[in-house]
Amino acid sequence: METKSENACFGGVQGVYTHTATSTSCDMTFGLFLPPQAKDGDVPVLWYLSGLTCTHENAMTKAGAQAWAAEAGIALVFPDTSPRGEGVADDDAYDLGQGAGFYVNATQAPWDPHFRMWDYITDELPQLLFGEFPLDPDRQGITGHSMGGHGALTMAMRLKGRFRSVSAFSPICNPTQSDWGQKQLTAYLGEDSGQWAAHDASLLMAETGFDGPMLIDTGTKDQFLDLLKPEALASAIATKRQQAVFRMQPGYDHSYFFVSTFMADHVAFHAEELLG
Amino acid sequence: METKSENACFGGVQGVYTHTATSTSCDMTFGLFLPPQAKDGDVPVLWYLSGLTCTHENAMTKAGAQAWAAEAGIALVFPDTSPRGEGVADDDAYDLGQGAGFYVNATQAPWDPHFRMWDYITDELPQLLFGEFPLDPDRQGITGHSMGGHGALTMAMRLKGRFRSVSAFSPICNPTQSDWGQKQLTAYLGEDSGQWAAHDASLLMAETGFDGPMLIDTGTKDQFLDLLKPEALASAIATKRQQAVFRMQPGYDHSYFFVSTFMADHVAFHAEELLG
Repeated sequence: METKSENACFGGVQGVYTHTATSTSCDMTFGLFLPPQAKDGDVPVLWYLSGLTCTHENAMTKAGAQAWAAEAGIALVFPDTSPRGEGVADDDAYDLGQGAGFYVNATQAPWDPHFRMWDYITDELPQLLFGEFPLDPDRQGITGHSMGGHGALTMAMRLKGRFRSVSAFSPICNPTQSDWGQKQLTAYLGEDSGQWAAHDASLLMAETGFDGPMLIDTGTKDQFLDLLKPEALASAIATKRQQAVFRMQPGYDHSYFFVSTFMADHVAFHAEELLG
Repeated sequence: METKSENACFGGVQGVYTHTATSTSCDMTFGLFLPPQAKDGDVPVLWYLSGLTCTHENAMTKAGAQAWAAEAGIALVFPDTSPRGEGVADDDAYDLGQGAGFYVNATQAPWDPHFRMWDYITDELPQLLFGEFPLDPDRQGITGHSMGGHGALTMAMRLKGRFRSVSAFSPICNPTQSDWGQKQLTAYLGEDSGQWAAHDASLLMAETGFDGPMLIDTGTKDQFLDLLKPEALASAIATKRQQAVFRMQPGYDHSYFFVSTFMADHVAFHAEELLG
């Protein structure tokens, strides 16, 4: 693991690190914010999964999360959104290939050698983090934005007991029924849509739900509402009787101006579970 | 004036606007955050001047200032750092030409037709803003980072009565004695260093000071301390008996991770003068 940068930030350290990942067969870069409390022992972790076109850097510089994480004493992990590099398959579209890993393990060519973001985020990166940094694996929460909200919700529901709390900003809620989903799931997982259900938050909600609290924020002026399909997740939450707060925020769009506005709420929500 | 974007943000609106400027003879772009309180009448204004290589966008997306400005009910202005465009002179160096206006009116070729950032920031942009938006010209504060801290300090000291409060993050404090200054002042104002003194915060402090409170933050691990010369300003403040809080922040560097960490303090500092 190589340290790319470490900057003092809200009394803690915002680091950026690169390592050679086995799961994705390429070098991967991630951001990690350690709050000041990490000097005194292991701290809880909040994962932040980013959206289409993002790298590890977007949320790290634009979401304003460190202010609240430092106050609460929670670490923040900012993984990249896909494998990258010259030997890694890509597509000209912004929503397929590099920057658009969709948090799945690809089974189809040309994606399958590297696009294994499910394994990277749920297995390889946690092993590295909990081995190298003062982080408490028993106190994890997960959140994300857009494609990253999709990743957070699907991981939280499928990895029973891993995360105490899950939240999402404008998540892709029903990818099996959306152009943000059908295209990528076909490319990465193949034409058999039976393989897609494990990566659809609304279907997972109907099937299993989440054993803990959930917070979802979406803007009423989000320019991608037709692709996100929040109504599918809202309906599934209500039908499942899932403990959840589902908010449509008036006037807000899909940008980081929206994410940063409600970041304090999300960190406080996770802090209650992780520190309470 | 053309609206480039408007995003809901912390209950207010983060806008980006472009207009054809007379002072710089080119189109200029700026960011303006209006807090929710602007719906009910004119609000105070805090100017934020950015540093070398920055545009209107850097602080707007990375400084986290809107959270605190919305709470206080203060508008934020994020001007660009230089004229721009195909017909505008430039230099291959990052610290001269476009992105490096240094907040002066150039008198030397090839810079003099466009590089009139002093007039743009102190005259033309205020006229536009106070004409078009619900902003109170009697309640203005100014801050900035690095080259923008230099701009904020020099404007606050030279424009008597304009600003009630001034602050700066890692400002260029003594440009007449630094490679961040001598190079640019020579290029823009000419070889006669007598013309430079009006753009040196430490010299202005010795001469006139500021009629109001001042807050300066600089990181002890700032990688540019030799160029910033905070010791010159600290000495001048003490010699002048200027009301000021001058802080060296342990472990922090020159990045926006530093700026965002102390942004809450700076907004609160200005709010006390603008709202008190």
